[in-house]
Amino acid sequence: MIELDLITSNPGKLKEFRSALEPLGFEVRHLPEEVDEIQADTLEEVVQGCVAQLKARGLRNFVLDDSGLFIDELNGFPGVYSSYVFRTLGCEGILKLLQGKSNRAARFECCIGCSIERMGQFTVKELSKGRIIHEMRGREGFGYDPIFVPAGKERTYAEMGLEEKNELSHRGKAIKSFARQLAKGMEGERR
Amino acid sequence: MIELDLITSNPGKLKEFRSALEPLGFEVRHLPEEVDEIQADTLEEVVQGCVAQLKARGLRNFVLDDSGLFIDELNGFPGVYSSYVFRTLGCEGILKLLQGKSNRAARFECCIGCSIERMGQFTVKELSKGRIIHEMRGREGFGYDPIFVPAGKERTYAEMGLEEKNELSHRGKAIKSFARQLAKGMEGERR
Repeated sequence: MIELDLITSNPGKLKEFRSALEPLGFEVRHLPEEVDEIQADTLEEVVQGCVAQLKARGLRNFVLDDSGLFIDELNGFPGVYSSYVFRTLGCEGILKLLQGKSNRAARFECCIGCSIERMGQFTVKELSKGRIIHEMRGREGFGYDPIFVPAGKERTYAEMGLEEKNELSHRGKAIKSFARQLAKGMEGERR
Repeated sequence: MIELDLITSNPGKLKEFRSALEPLGFEVRHLPEEVDEIQADTLEEVVQGCVAQLKARGLRNFVLDDSGLFIDELNGFPGVYSSYVFRTLGCEGILKLLQGKSNRAARFECCIGCSIERMGQFTVKELSKGRIIHEMRGREGFGYDPIFVPAGKERTYAEMGLEEKNELSHRGKAIKSFARQLAKGMEGERR
């Protein structure tokens, strides 16, 4: 087993990472290491900044992720600052900003970055497209889940069970994509 | 003369720093060094993060500043992300978020941080209190100037000349406060 530290303040993410990465031979452990996210326009820049910072601190095998909601009509706002904006304005603020706007297109993005010995450092990003509805619906999940309906669906993330959401969601997709990259890397190793 | 680098991408700030610091024996030079601002809730944390980063890079005598608009009714939003929020939502977004709100209290904050040989590293912060009006007024200045009226005044920053604004403004006050700190430090040196 290769030990891999998941850097997060939210141990709830552990289960999702474990179920994707353990079959590949990784033992995922939770490491609540503090890291300063930088201000930038894209999640990739934020995640790369975190990876660089942790490498400089001497950490060796680790993975972390960052997510955000990007709304077309608002020029990508709240983007990389989604969690700050949720704390200050909430879903209500987003609904107010979109009052009277017909373009409701939005996407959730998730970027995962890692540094792993012999595989180097890389990021993967995946997204779920969808739309912002006109009111809050549902009680599951967290954050902007009550106002986001993924493409082709009628229910918000907050109206879905965790499994259904993980199947569709940006983080679920990003974790799968990350696992595929790791699997490729390990194949390269074995050759 | 002691050489002091002003780290900024906006050379327009140079004049204001020079007029306050040259009388104290500092030669202020513009250094457009890139620095990653971190995500944090206060300007002090952002500025301290920048100072630490530049020191780690080997810079010795430098000063930098960061400003933000903090709106009471919006839990401090847009705060340290004021410039990102201005680029995405503009003044119009702020007015929309405050529609129907009677509490219009807001403050502009400016934090200045420095690292200077023999004086060490410190920050000063000053603020101007005021209120967000219901529409945009005036063409001077930049950013949120058209919607902010400082306490005790009737005109927005964007309706004032540069000199009048500098007299009242958070940055003007912070530069003065910073100059006082420097003057004290130099007195300490001479004793």
